[in-house]
Amino acid sequence: MNTFGEKLKVSIFGESHGEAVGIVIDGLPPGFMPDMDAVRFQMRRRAPGQSPETTARREADEPEIVSGLFNGKATGAPLCCLFRNTDTKSGDYQPWLPRPGHADLTAHIKYKGFADYRGGGHFSGRLTAPLVFAGALARQLLSGVTIDAAAVRPSTNAILNAKKEGDSLGGQITCEVSGLPAGLGEPFFGSAESRLAALLFSIPAVKALEFENGITLSTERGSVSNTYPYAVLGGITTGKTLIFSVYLKPTPSIATEQDTIDLRTGLPAKLTVRGRHDPCIVPRAVPVVEAVTALGLLDLWLLSGMPL
Amino acid sequence: MNTFGEKLKVSIFGESHGEAVGIVIDGLPPGFMPDMDAVRFQMRRRAPGQSPETTARREADEPEIVSGLFNGKATGAPLCCLFRNTDTKSGDYQPWLPRPGHADLTAHIKYKGFADYRGGGHFSGRLTAPLVFAGALARQLLSGVTIDAAAVRPSTNAILNAKKEGDSLGGQITCEVSGLPAGLGEPFFGSAESRLAALLFSIPAVKALEFENGITLSTERGSVSNTYPYAVLGGITTGKTLIFSVYLKPTPSIATEQDTIDLRTGLPAKLTVRGRHDPCIVPRAVPVVEAVTALGLLDLWLLSGMPL
Amino acid sequence: MNTFGEKLKVSIFGESHGEAVGIVIDGLPPGFMPDMDAVRFQMRRRAPGQSPETTARREADEPEIVSGLFNGKATGAPLCCLFRNTDTKSGDYQPWLPRPGHADLTAHIKYKGFADYRGGGHFSGRLTAPLVFAGALARQLLSGVTIDAAAVRPSTNAILNAKKEGDSLGGQITCEVSGLPAGLGEPFFGSAESRLAALLFSIPAVKALEFENGITLSTERGSVSNTYPYAVLGGITTGKTLIFSVYLKPTPSIATEQDTIDLRTGLPAKLTVRGRHDPCIVPRAVPVVEAVTALGLLDLWLLSGMPL
Amino acid sequence: MNTFGEKLKVSIFGESHGEAVGIVIDGLPPGFMPDMDAVRFQMRRRAPGQSPETTARREADEPEIVSGLFNGKATGAPLCCLFRNTDTKSGDYQPWLPRPGHADLTAHIKYKGFADYRGGGHFSGRLTAPLVFAGALARQLLSGVTIDAAAVRPSTNAILNAKKEGDSLGGQITCEVSGLPAGLGEPFFGSAESRLAALLFSIPAVKALEFENGITLSTERGSVSNTYPYAVLGGITTGKTLIFSVYLKPTPSIATEQDTIDLRTGLPAKLTVRGRHDPCIVPRAVPVVEAVTALGLLDLWLLSGMPL
Repeated sequence: MNTFGEKLKVSIFGESHGEAVGIVIDGLPPGFMPDMDAVRFQMRRRAPGQSPETTARREADEPEIVSGLFNGKATGAPLCCLFRNTDTKSGDYQPWLPRPGHADLTAHIKYKGFADYRGGGHFSGRLTAPLVFAGALARQLLSGVTIDAAAVRPSTNAILNAKKEGDSLGGQITCEVSGLPAGLGEPFFGSAESRLAALLFSIPAVKALEFENGITLSTERGSVSNTYPYAVLGGITTGKTLIFSVYLKPTPSIATEQDTIDLRTGLPAKLTVRGRHDPCIVPRAVPVVEAVTALGLLDLWLLSGMPL
Repeated sequence: MNTFGEKLKVSIFGESHGEAVGIVIDGLPPGFMPDMDAVRFQMRRRAPGQSPETTARREADEPEIVSGLFNGKATGAPLCCLFRNTDTKSGDYQPWLPRPGHADLTAHIKYKGFADYRGGGHFSGRLTAPLVFAGALARQLLSGVTIDAAAVRPSTNAILNAKKEGDSLGGQITCEVSGLPAGLGEPFFGSAESRLAALLFSIPAVKALEFENGITLSTERGSVSNTYPYAVLGGITTGKTLIFSVYLKPTPSIATEQDTIDLRTGLPAKLTVRGRHDPCIVPRAVPVVEAVTALGLLDLWLLSGMPL
Repeated sequence: MNTFGEKLKVSIFGESHGEAVGIVIDGLPPGFMPDMDAVRFQMRRRAPGQSPETTARREADEPEIVSGLFNGKATGAPLCCLFRNTDTKSGDYQPWLPRPGHADLTAHIKYKGFADYRGGGHFSGRLTAPLVFAGALARQLLSGVTIDAAAVRPSTNAILNAKKEGDSLGGQITCEVSGLPAGLGEPFFGSAESRLAALLFSIPAVKALEFENGITLSTERGSVSNTYPYAVLGGITTGKTLIFSVYLKPTPSIATEQDTIDLRTGLPAKLTVRGRHDPCIVPRAVPVVEAVTALGLLDLWLLSGMPL
Repeated sequence: MNTFGEKLKVSIFGESHGEAVGIVIDGLPPGFMPDMDAVRFQMRRRAPGQSPETTARREADEPEIVSGLFNGKATGAPLCCLFRNTDTKSGDYQPWLPRPGHADLTAHIKYKGFADYRGGGHFSGRLTAPLVFAGALARQLLSGVTIDAAAVRPSTNAILNAKKEGDSLGGQITCEVSGLPAGLGEPFFGSAESRLAALLFSIPAVKALEFENGITLSTERGSVSNTYPYAVLGGITTGKTLIFSVYLKPTPSIATEQDTIDLRTGLPAKLTVRGRHDPCIVPRAVPVVEAVTALGLLDLWLLSGMPL
């Protein structure tokens, strides 16, 4: 449910305004010595507050590792890491007015009215902090692999304009992975694409995913598409560079008044979302896309039995 | 690896030119009485040979159920169903010349030279026959749910032209699912989108997936995108109609001579793919998309604990 | 549910009086060439009819491999093998009179009255045929490992006497595994003992399991027990010889009239079990114990990443 | 690996002398309001220091719940709970001298020399603290079910004598579970016995397990054993009271000098185990046996789809 992976298992937990969010990572090779500066660098890329484009919420996001490291090296036993929630303003949320485009209503239904509604609770983008942490470890283990993602997104000006108008924007992120060996992935449900897709669609706001220029290829003739340098065939990597794109919807939290329903009465209601939000989540999602990509690929690598 | 599902587990097996392909389905509700005519109807939709657009290979695809049914009703124990391979022409394949755009090379690498190369072996689209069978059962259990997919694809003329010129085409399939209850899906890795994506990307040739108009939404403002009638929020269904599209690359088997490498020597070589192939797989992929959708949704439904 | 294993996954299916029982084995190393004579030797050890101690049911138990082998070698894709049921006398069973000590009543409850009741259906010992088949493959892959089990059981005379009196006997099987490397197993739930226990308790009639003289050790002092040559410590193998014992209850099918309840009325009833049965299942269970041991150990070995 | 459960998933982490041990519990019913006094009562039963029979190590074992609860009620999202390690004396351990009967050597091998060796690290009995916590929640959810375990063990005098002589003792725990519904469990690998066995053998020191008087039954005739009031048949519960026994080896930590090998040289060496230890772990293992039993049964119950 909140767990992913076969040989590198990650389990995430936490709520946006609870004590902490965190992750348990099981399957790190014993002796692996994480470069914590590199981890913090990745955490900072995701952290808010680095530009006027992002939410005003400030979280130190300092990893609190409570197990699995000894003398700075992975012991082989599960590593658990927490990120405390410190800068919460829970008064901003009204549980009976689900915010449009958010998981508020579905969380309310699924968890029978007991979901922690504050800041989206367990469905918050804040849960991507532990994912970036885990991904930062994973990429250190993927020796020879480079994972580069870049946002294809509105300009800073456009974002700030949207913000000023109480609105928000979405965008696209394209990710390139070079240095993968041939032979990662399994047939069918365990294909490299299936595994990465399951991870990428777990990132809040991601609504579409295109592997390897797939949309364009679908309009070509076979004599052309067969010349494409595929990174994945039959679900298995070829050793060539993998390129994919994800498409993110705009941040659903906007300052403009919106229509919703009042869960107490079932009647239509008006809602003005308070709280501090990113007018465009795309820049902060870039390291998240890289992180889950690293997690998925490391798991496939370990599954393959090839040495790291 | 070749298994999918939590409460409805499916395991596929078989190779295109081996004895049979098949599936084990574990978790069917005891007492369920499959409508075998409806199953055969779905099998026929996927079967080749119904129009000049499809391969000339003829397979009866009559389900051979060897367990899990008693007096026509599901016993509760696993149901295993085989589909014999009868119309194989294995002489058409040369194991040392991987066909471009196919899994031949990656299967060769992954399985260390021991893959059954004939007709793509285990990576063949023939493995979708048992998936359509299982999906045909699943959709009968999804009471009140309608799954309609349609190809957005080249015209029959365009396909026949491509075929005549020794070429092939791809296309797009859009699927609409109505009648789903609210509350299906899990947060993050078990989101309705993650689960469906893992299944949809296991269909050979699918290279891109767009949920709910996601590509267009990524270019909208939040004030617009928030008015979209989302079927999934936070990974959980809302009860609204779900729409998604998959994009398929052209059939890689084309009659034109192509470049490949000779695995015996590692040197460039020329290959003319023989065998019988679909100039455009999109029409036959429509029931496959519906089938895996039904499987994924039934698994989520059973997981949710809601009564069927 | 009916699946076991992480890197070597087995899925069993079938009912005693249905078309067939069988198994899907996913994760066999590509290129592995099973010695089919050795497989048949193991199947014969489990087969009935080799002495007056066993049931009169005759099954050829010839493996019908429908996938996963090509030119006699494992392809890397799942191997599915069927065993047809040919010698069934289903008229011997009355669905409304559950046999004491059998799974008839619990299967009836669990599967809501739709279980295949004939010969125990899916709960029959006949399902151990595919397990012996899979174990026969697994032990060929466990190079350097010897798995020897022996029944500590009543004499043939005692068995025949019990049979004559319409009664049955149980017994004990002790298994010894030498040649294991150190380092197999995981902490806690994945311990070598936990994994083997899950498999051994899936064998019908096994009701107790003792690892490494554990019952006696529980009455010793630490200064003595610490000198025991443990094969497993902390769930991980030490490289020493592993010894364990399972205890099997007597065959519940006996010719004597017994008390049961009539499921149609809920009232007490009398039942005389017909059908053909083993007066003592212990001799035929020996190869089954060996087989699941081989399966569990091979899975742990593959999980460990050590080369075979 | 360190995860158990299908519908109620628990993942344990931590090392004996690290920051903390803990657990993530996924699948608690939303709205469930744990009685924390009852939880603390269970924690105290396992805690050391309540009698001269137990180790002198003192840990508050106060649950630090960091997620999954909101206003004292389960949110439906994963609950993570930590137990800080506060009273550690790590200087007592020499990594190059593995303690006989402990996991020191196997952990060293499995984790390639990087295991946290202090106090047994991840293999320590301290990891049972989070299991007792989780079990305390589970038993509250098992309405109508009573789980009573009792040690069949040496007298306090015998334990204190052994301690005085620098020695230790083992023992037996018998557990009785009443109030279970009929129909829990799955055939074969998912049998109630297989699931419970996997959990019970994950408790350090457990070396044997007897369900339902199984050892005695193995020596009876079928006409007698068939009259036993079985709680499990074919892996599925009957609704009758379940009884089983586990056998624990003596605490391997004893004050007497013992033989070991020096991992630096591979040569024989002498070792006197320091540290604080239980001369007989059996009394403190009683609540652990109950806890994992509750976890296993709750998971089976949730899997069955029956309402709690």
